Amino acid sequence: MKIICQKSDLQKSVNISLRAVPVRSTMPILECILIDARSNTIRMISNDTDMGIETILHGDVVDKGVIAINAKMFAEVVRKLPDSEVTIETDYNMNVVFLCDKSRVMIPGEAGDDFTYLPNVERDECVEISQFTLRQIISQTIFSIASNENNKLMTGELFEITGDMLRVVALDGHRISMRRVSLKEEYPDRKVIVPGKTLGEISKILNGEIEDMVKIYMTRNHILFELQDTTVVSRLIEGEYFAVDQMISRDYETKVRIRKQALFSCIDRATLFVKEGDKKPIILDFNGDNLNLSIDSPLGAMNEDIDIEKEGRNLMIGFNPRFMMDALKVIEDEVVTLYLTNSKSPCFIRDEDNSYTYLVLPVNFMR
Amino acid sequence: MKIICQKSDLQKSVNISLRAVPVRSTMPILECILIDARSNTIRMISNDTDMGIETILHGDVVDKGVIAINAKMFAEVVRKLPDSEVTIETDYNMNVVFLCDKSRVMIPGEAGDDFTYLPNVERDECVEISQFTLRQIISQTIFSIASNENNKLMTGELFEITGDMLRVVALDGHRISMRRVSLKEEYPDRKVIVPGKTLGEISKILNGEIEDMVKIYMTRNHILFELQDTTVVSRLIEGEYFAVDQMISRDYETKVRIRKQALFSCIDRATLFVKEGDKKPIILDFNGDNLNLSIDSPLGAMNEDIDIEKEGRNLMIGFNPRFMMDALKVIEDEVVTLYLTNSKSPCFIRDEDNSYTYLVLPVNFMR
Repeated sequence: MKIICQKSDLQKSVNISLRAVPVRSTMPILECILIDARSNTIRMISNDTDMGIETILHGDVVDKGVIAINAKMFAEVVRKLPDSEVTIETDYNMNVVFLCDKSRVMIPGEAGDDFTYLPNVERDECVEISQFTLRQIISQTIFSIASNENNKLMTGELFEITGDMLRVVALDGHRISMRRVSLKEEYPDRKVIVPGKTLGEISKILNGEIEDMVKIYMTRNHILFELQDTTVVSRLIEGEYFAVDQMISRDYETKVRIRKQALFSCIDRATLFVKEGDKKPIILDFNGDNLNLSIDSPLGAMNEDIDIEKEGRNLMIGFNPRFMMDALKVIEDEVVTLYLTNSKSPCFIRDEDNSYTYLVLPVNFMR
Repeated sequence: MKIICQKSDLQKSVNISLRAVPVRSTMPILECILIDARSNTIRMISNDTDMGIETILHGDVVDKGVIAINAKMFAEVVRKLPDSEVTIETDYNMNVVFLCDKSRVMIPGEAGDDFTYLPNVERDECVEISQFTLRQIISQTIFSIASNENNKLMTGELFEITGDMLRVVALDGHRISMRRVSLKEEYPDRKVIVPGKTLGEISKILNGEIEDMVKIYMTRNHILFELQDTTVVSRLIEGEYFAVDQMISRDYETKVRIRKQALFSCIDRATLFVKEGDKKPIILDFNGDNLNLSIDSPLGAMNEDIDIEKEGRNLMIGFNPRFMMDALKVIEDEVVTLYLTNSKSPCFIRDEDNSYTYLVLPVNFMR
């Protein structure tokens, strides 16, 4: 195999490919990136068996061929090459030689025979969405998936299409994060559960431009994201997702409008007094047009007032400060609205047109 | 005690004080920062017994007093306070209350009775140097002190004053780094060995402005750095420093001029093939107006040519790439000059007027 490309293109393709390389695998070949130049297009493929990436490297194929290169070493070599034209060539001993300016670097390669290519996913009907929006809604929800695997369903996010609406939901038993965005056209209804890991990696590949689109194909077992030069395929999580709509009530006794940054900073200060792994809640006392926020622990104490606009009954309620902060951090509105019922019922943070809903369960506290 | 100051000033003083707080100490009081407001000046003091810092906090003393506050907690609280005026007040239970806007934060304090104040260092004759220059020469030498304590002298840097010249030297048995700067006036000759840790910390306090000066006082056992609002005192390392001048020869057989960045990048690529802890050298073959740089290891191989201007004999020599890179990284010249004798003798990198000299010992290699 012999190919010629620019170092900057090579760097870009390798960085994308790295996203699907497992850190350690029982199949060492998967720790490699495959360069497939058997046609006149150079493809780089990586695959951790849950998720696979195929990306096109812009360049010329001089001699057709295939080679697998240890991904870590490959990335290191590419990073340190001069910023110039690179020739990548293999010899009969499966060595890979990089020629760039006056530099000649050689690393061992491997035959790509055992390499697992991407599964063949039928590209039937696709949903189109801007890369920017997809990246946004992932980052605005993914923090509330569960990190441990006890409940597999909680490690993924629900992607649900109803007409021209995409809803993304993540929940971990303590909170729910939900975002809705409207799509350019109507699609047949469908819902799938996408692994959180896939979404984390795809976020890093999306370039975040509003104009650049991504096509999403969903089958029974797979989801496929199609970008300009890159295709990402992931397994889906099997099973029936939680009945989210039943968990989300629109009733409330107390409605509170509050400046988001003031609330966030105040809760952030309260975290000073919560030790790692401690379940100590912060206590929010909504009273008239004042919110008093307090925490008291062996580490110290805090007490702070914030102006609010309140409708409905006064209320005292405790929360895990981390969960409140996670939600507030990803809300872009300057003023947020909290909907509360009583000290045992969840708090909802949502906007008028339901583009977001964050539910946080309260924590019991002793007065 | 009751004092009033701006959060930004408080933050600045705490950040400076943190530099002399030990991570863990057998004397828990030393994990505190002391606020001493017994006069109308507010002083913050921290001391890890090897090094101590006293810095002035701009603010008003309402009630005189002293309090010690756990440094980590103190820093966290200050970081999270609103950017506004802060009142710090103590009660009879040694609690410290921070009032800032509508926030009231309380953390436990400690009586400062056991706190170790800075040693009294006689401020006899001082050497004055710009903060920028001091920070420069530290960063340009400190990487070559020894990290382990087997030879205490190697963990410090020689500060040597001869007339109007300050020389700073660091060495670890494999290399020597030496910088010389001229001072504004002549001073009596003296030399001291300053602990590397002190120099690392002082670097982070120096603001790096050329106009801002630092006064340095040296006694038998201590060195004192006096900045605008901050005083740093450190113990010196006892003993007689190595006879550096005897190690540095001005004879050579081969003199090579080479573009620094080309040499640096090339050696950097070579490090791809050196495993952590491996002593594999890179081999430099100076031949005519070409330098061939090569390395061959089980990880892979590299081979590269660089144009040079050479006077004297051809030569092949091996080096630990890390040591060469460390020196090249802190040299600002675009073209560097290497002085070599044979494959067993050190390589010198130095400029015409001896403002810097870097010595790197060669590593044996098998042809």
